[in-house]
Amino acid sequence: MKNHTLLTDFYQLTMMNGYLKNNVHNDIVVFDLFFRKNPSENSYTIICGLEQVINYIENLQFSEEDIDYLRSLNSFDEEFFQVLREFKFTGDIYSVPEGSVMFPYEPILRIKATCFEAQLIETALLNMINFQSLIATKAARVCTAAKGDPVLEFGLRRAQGPDAAIYGARAAYIGGCAGTSNVLAGKMFNIPVSGTQAHSWIQKFDSELEAFRAYAKIYPHNCLLLVDTYDTLKSGVPNAITIFQELREQGYTPAGIRIDSGDIAYLSKEARRLLNAAGFPEVKIVASSDLDEDVINSLKIQEAAVDSWGVGTNLITSKGCPALGGVYKLAAVEENGGLVPKIKISENPEKITNPGYKKVVRIYDNSGEFALADVIMLEDEVIDTNKPYTIFHPIYTWKKKTFVHYSVRELLVPIFLGGELVYERKSTNEIREYAKAELATLWPEYKRLNRPQLYKVDLSEKLWRLKDSMVNSIRNE
Amino acid sequence: MKNHTLLTDFYQLTMMNGYLKNNVHNDIVVFDLFFRKNPSENSYTIICGLEQVINYIENLQFSEEDIDYLRSLNSFDEEFFQVLREFKFTGDIYSVPEGSVMFPYEPILRIKATCFEAQLIETALLNMINFQSLIATKAARVCTAAKGDPVLEFGLRRAQGPDAAIYGARAAYIGGCAGTSNVLAGKMFNIPVSGTQAHSWIQKFDSELEAFRAYAKIYPHNCLLLVDTYDTLKSGVPNAITIFQELREQGYTPAGIRIDSGDIAYLSKEARRLLNAAGFPEVKIVASSDLDEDVINSLKIQEAAVDSWGVGTNLITSKGCPALGGVYKLAAVEENGGLVPKIKISENPEKITNPGYKKVVRIYDNSGEFALADVIMLEDEVIDTNKPYTIFHPIYTWKKKTFVHYSVRELLVPIFLGGELVYERKSTNEIREYAKAELATLWPEYKRLNRPQLYKVDLSEKLWRLKDSMVNSIRNE
Repeated sequence: MKNHTLLTDFYQLTMMNGYLKNNVHNDIVVFDLFFRKNPSENSYTIICGLEQVINYIENLQFSEEDIDYLRSLNSFDEEFFQVLREFKFTGDIYSVPEGSVMFPYEPILRIKATCFEAQLIETALLNMINFQSLIATKAARVCTAAKGDPVLEFGLRRAQGPDAAIYGARAAYIGGCAGTSNVLAGKMFNIPVSGTQAHSWIQKFDSELEAFRAYAKIYPHNCLLLVDTYDTLKSGVPNAITIFQELREQGYTPAGIRIDSGDIAYLSKEARRLLNAAGFPEVKIVASSDLDEDVINSLKIQEAAVDSWGVGTNLITSKGCPALGGVYKLAAVEENGGLVPKIKISENPEKITNPGYKKVVRIYDNSGEFALADVIMLEDEVIDTNKPYTIFHPIYTWKKKTFVHYSVRELLVPIFLGGELVYERKSTNEIREYAKAELATLWPEYKRLNRPQLYKVDLSEKLWRLKDSMVNSIRNE
Repeated sequence: MKNHTLLTDFYQLTMMNGYLKNNVHNDIVVFDLFFRKNPSENSYTIICGLEQVINYIENLQFSEEDIDYLRSLNSFDEEFFQVLREFKFTGDIYSVPEGSVMFPYEPILRIKATCFEAQLIETALLNMINFQSLIATKAARVCTAAKGDPVLEFGLRRAQGPDAAIYGARAAYIGGCAGTSNVLAGKMFNIPVSGTQAHSWIQKFDSELEAFRAYAKIYPHNCLLLVDTYDTLKSGVPNAITIFQELREQGYTPAGIRIDSGDIAYLSKEARRLLNAAGFPEVKIVASSDLDEDVINSLKIQEAAVDSWGVGTNLITSKGCPALGGVYKLAAVEENGGLVPKIKISENPEKITNPGYKKVVRIYDNSGEFALADVIMLEDEVIDTNKPYTIFHPIYTWKKKTFVHYSVRELLVPIFLGGELVYERKSTNEIREYAKAELATLWPEYKRLNRPQLYKVDLSEKLWRLKDSMVNSIRNE
């Protein structure tokens, strides 16, 4: 693990030094990490990246080399460097588990720490959570379009650098992909890897048939052939069928073909017809070629004969929406042993923050099968599920809904307490299963690719009143 | 440096093993790395990422842990692992220097190596060059819009993972940015870092004025104040002026204000008016708030009073075009000591590759000040600059242009020869200066943000005839 202690915005350091010089650096503050808008016009976001946040927090340490660099900037003094040398994260971090399905404005992570510590970690936390949540959500969209067909992540060569490829492959797997082409990601996170041959393999041999035969000889158990190097239907598929017949005579079951260019709808249906006519109805067809959820959706409508999908650039970069705009906002400051709520006002109502030390509660139907709504509330509030509970829209307050038979679950769980990791780390496969279970609690209308139904996230009445009074008091000043 | 040896697509390994088993793994092949389309509708691409390619090639080594992982996949045997254990890159890599301005279809890197080696490195090379070239080019666009004003890269929190932030900051600096907020990138590449305070600093104090005063006390030499936490014109700017007056009385020169939200055109002009009226015409105004080249261009047209620009998400992700589609295609295979050209045919004419062992020559006006056109030619071709030289469009061959007084320069230079690094590494600042000099050789019409003039890239007659005959011969088969 690279030391990412300096992976922060310079202003965090100038502020940290400023807090130190004003002798308020040990004041306890509360920050919420949340986003205001789901990526890709989706109705939910799959939260991902917590494992990397844990590694980052555990490895926070300023080396002498880091301090030498900071000294070279002529902005700080030795008192500051001495505090950096002794730096250790001592605060509390609550988070939703990785793979959670979350919605705009909900605290995803809640940090309670000295302002010195809380500022340092802001930027790296946002970087890690923003990117992986973005890709996990994009993957879920692509998998929704594929309707249960395996989707393979093939984007390494177009990812935004090595980490984007590695952690993007992880996030894509958590979001529902069946595997990746990225060997290093496979090794690091125990993700299934796959891949067979490129056009260069075919070109390297004197003929396509020879190239196919050479491949089949080495990989007879898993022979998947790339058929579009010269001419998919006139050359590639007939040559593949020749090889598949040879394999069958040797007692092997051929795996499939891959089509990487051209009109996938037409080519896949024709290839399927040729393969079936030659007695290979069980052979699979893999498609890859600038795919995304919209293209896959369209190919499904056209009844393309594709069994699995390799998705590259558009998934690994979340093309169309390459950033999740997560933010990290001050919610409270400890004074005289109590937490005083803080708010950030804006001309733009969407940018006014929710003040106070908060939690998120999800309301389920009585069986616990489907999520009905979320409520953001103050930490000390309790919902008595023996009584009906009414939620209301925070702007159109006449929009109300009362639950009578329901259950509730608090979503934030402790990760670090007093700087100590208290959370049991999950394997990538466990996180993937959790995401799958989370998605299963959403009605299909929320998972629609276009214009999904919006999930209700309301404020408790107590939080709503607190916010309303704070906004009014600042505006009347 | 992380070991990125496994940062490759799985199919590279299945092909490598396949070449080994067919006993052709030591055959020498030539691959070209090139792109087919500039990013963001630009007319050029600034090539970036070579330094990371050099580090990657020098550190290529399969560890026993890597081999244990590969063994666990049950796709390979011990013979393959033994060859991996002894793996070392022994080939030649030519590249254009980092910071070069290049155009579609031109070989950016040319790899001549065993097919075993050339396949392994394909994916990582594409990953590194694609991303950094994308961001360097986006930065050049943003800096073009800013017309000489300093542009600061502020995207760390929204970048696609840590590497995207770090290498993106490097690429943005090379592309023309004046600095970054990213401290780790600053340390690694000697990039100027900047940043002052966030809204949380302002909120942490009992009033905005108190927060400003506390900051000014610690940083009197470089006091830049964030003025939009409560109300930019009614509160932020007047409070900043109060502090600036105090600083001036103490003998300091105030630095500026930053506006991070709202209507930047209106707010900057009004803030400028207030600052000037208070006797601070020298104080700078920094703007940040979801900026990109189009927004900056529009603000320039509106005569916004902005002196420097902080650009985050849209730069670091190259929003609108988050991937450069670089590819890596087989161009030749060594047979009996000679290089036999190879071609990849496609129904899509743009996807037909240029065959053979090639180079790129740039034609300049006689003074060497402006680039006139590029020619892709076979390695053994020479242009005699004492004679006129005629280029022609590879499709509309009647489109010709003859140069009489001109000079030429070959763009590819040796980086690795026989596996040894022969290139003298450049500092990030040298690369930035080189990119600046390269951009200065382009007429302004090529650098226009919208619908730029397209730079001419033609094939030499010899290469054109080779390609034409190969296409015809394959299509007639």
